[in-house]
Amino acid sequence: MLITLTTDFGSKEPYAGIMKGVMLRINPDAKIIDLTHEIGPHNIREAVFVLLNAYKYFPPDTIHVAVVDPGVGSARRPIALKSGVHFFIGPDNGLFTNFIRDAEKIVHIKNKKCLLPLKGPTFHARDIFAPAAAWLSKGLRLAELGPEIKDPVKMELPKAERKKNSIKGEVIHIDRFGNCISNIGVELLGPLKRKTARIEVKGRVLELVPFYSYKGAVKPRALINSDGLLEIFIFKGNAAKELGMEIGDALSAT
Amino acid sequence: MLITLTTDFGSKEPYAGIMKGVMLRINPDAKIIDLTHEIGPHNIREAVFVLLNAYKYFPPDTIHVAVVDPGVGSARRPIALKSGVHFFIGPDNGLFTNFIRDAEKIVHIKNKKCLLPLKGPTFHARDIFAPAAAWLSKGLRLAELGPEIKDPVKMELPKAERKKNSIKGEVIHIDRFGNCISNIGVELLGPLKRKTARIEVKGRVLELVPFYSYKGAVKPRALINSDGLLEIFIFKGNAAKELGMEIGDALSAT
Amino acid sequence: MLITLTTDFGSKEPYAGIMKGVMLRINPDAKIIDLTHEIGPHNIREAVFVLLNAYKYFPPDTIHVAVVDPGVGSARRPIALKSGVHFFIGPDNGLFTNFIRDAEKIVHIKNKKCLLPLKGPTFHARDIFAPAAAWLSKGLRLAELGPEIKDPVKMELPKAERKKNSIKGEVIHIDRFGNCISNIGVELLGPLKRKTARIEVKGRVLELVPFYSYKGAVKPRALINSDGLLEIFIFKGNAAKELGMEIGDALSAT
Repeated sequence: MLITLTTDFGSKEPYAGIMKGVMLRINPDAKIIDLTHEIGPHNIREAVFVLLNAYKYFPPDTIHVAVVDPGVGSARRPIALKSGVHFFIGPDNGLFTNFIRDAEKIVHIKNKKCLLPLKGPTFHARDIFAPAAAWLSKGLRLAELGPEIKDPVKMELPKAERKKNSIKGEVIHIDRFGNCISNIGVELLGPLKRKTARIEVKGRVLELVPFYSYKGAVKPRALINSDGLLEIFIFKGNAAKELGMEIGDALSAT
Repeated sequence: MLITLTTDFGSKEPYAGIMKGVMLRINPDAKIIDLTHEIGPHNIREAVFVLLNAYKYFPPDTIHVAVVDPGVGSARRPIALKSGVHFFIGPDNGLFTNFIRDAEKIVHIKNKKCLLPLKGPTFHARDIFAPAAAWLSKGLRLAELGPEIKDPVKMELPKAERKKNSIKGEVIHIDRFGNCISNIGVELLGPLKRKTARIEVKGRVLELVPFYSYKGAVKPRALINSDGLLEIFIFKGNAAKELGMEIGDALSAT
Repeated sequence: MLITLTTDFGSKEPYAGIMKGVMLRINPDAKIIDLTHEIGPHNIREAVFVLLNAYKYFPPDTIHVAVVDPGVGSARRPIALKSGVHFFIGPDNGLFTNFIRDAEKIVHIKNKKCLLPLKGPTFHARDIFAPAAAWLSKGLRLAELGPEIKDPVKMELPKAERKKNSIKGEVIHIDRFGNCISNIGVELLGPLKRKTARIEVKGRVLELVPFYSYKGAVKPRALINSDGLLEIFIFKGNAAKELGMEIGDALSAT
């Protein structure tokens, strides 16, 4: 079984490597894939976005471990859940908001036989999440990790909305290239005609084009990206810098 | 079979991890190695350098996937080729310049059975290159990916030259330590005597020494590195910063 | 057998990926885990800290390759050693200080059959350490790598000390979150009562609390972390920045 890792540990620290040691000691056959360890420190929302776009490209029964965990060591619960054909493991702080609604079962990880002896309050990824994931990957059933819970923490996520003739949304991710990805999905945009669409952001009106290098123009434009989301970009440039955009900035499509 | 990845996606983004999910869903036995995901955004030339220095250390039949792809979504072709005992997969934009000349066969990846359904124009690494690599790693023949092409894109690469008694070249890579690696190879330098060689750069004349810590001097010097290339360095310092050097800067050896 | 990698190569460079190619060519079954490639350039002490905290979470017989090697190409010896149930491979420059005392055997890697032909003085990780590790992982005995040595290089590491009623130590690591980790271990702190402990740093007196989010206060505080070390932090903040702390800064506990 595959295990993926998504954390805010940074690649400078050996924390992710240590998690892998713990997992491979329990299950030497575990196959572990890094999604990213560069989530902004404590930025739960960024991890929510990454998980949502990534999980579905992994095989059934993949175990997704996510650790962005400012409350580590407090009473916040470590949880494991199954949603569709995927498993998720991490702190109960909203990280798995998108998967909770359809979860088959959510458990509070408590079974000491599946954990490392807790040496301190700062590294549950090593002492709780990694061993729990390794045991699951060996075939342990979810119910053996701990008792079921019914009240997991959910996060309020910004949703794009249709208002009369216009769709209002916001920037939810800025990638390495300065591309600004919004929460306006292609299903909402449906009726808009590409040629006549007006994308408004920061008081500017942008064209909607089919791909980054279209006609080679080097100015802010928009496209529908490969996740079906409206995205602002500059071909070979950095739209976020040039437009001064940040996560949460509003945009609309008419 | 091994698969290597070289991209400009950055380690902050989950894009490389998603590629691995796609590949492992097709071939659960694929072994995937990251070369780097920190190629400068859109810097095809940097990826050309990385591939040239790295590919030969991998076993026969390794599949090298490289994605630095400003033209993603446009008509630029996705290609796969075999050169010597290695395979290469990526966009047809010059990335594989060094391998095209001796390529046994180059194909335009088109076989829809080997691709994900294309959901948008921005992530061919996920939808085309990753699945094509995974199918090759399962034993699919190159010809099954698509029709042969004879006109791949090549890039003009700067070459060092001997002019009378002097060899002229330029900086082609600056590494993390500030070492400035040139395109002057040991085979061109051959006749130069180490003790009498004069390396000129930015109006300064540098000594050629056998290794970084030689005599412990902390000043700009040159050596022949482990790829057989002339390199400017400062022991425990940063030559690029101190000398203000950039990629493309000229140097000569006399 | 597992192999771990700890280097200062940076994730921008393909050097770690090349090491993996070399190892997998020798032993296709090697399983290789990155601890970090972001050790500060030439910062041997940082690597010493990382290794000490990480190695014990890996299974018996894991081979830990560490390369922070300003003296590469000089007469400094490449070494391999066994300490407890773990192997270590790298330059003889103090990197393995913590493991030398209890080492069962330390050898000078010299057996040319286990190395790549040396093409230059700058990349022993590729030409010496990677192949030596791969051969060990295939079952080669340590003694076959080269002759035993008795005089490995050791590094003087700062130790925390009890002086009368107070314990004096220093910051030995600052992590991505700005947490400042000291060399004051829980065993020295033993007699201190948590409620009455005074942690002094930069002229300020800090509380010792049980976990990061304790009472939600956003100010510099201290805790005992999951490696049993006294650590200065700010909940959801950056203690190193706010207090202007650097590695080597003194702190005391009373």
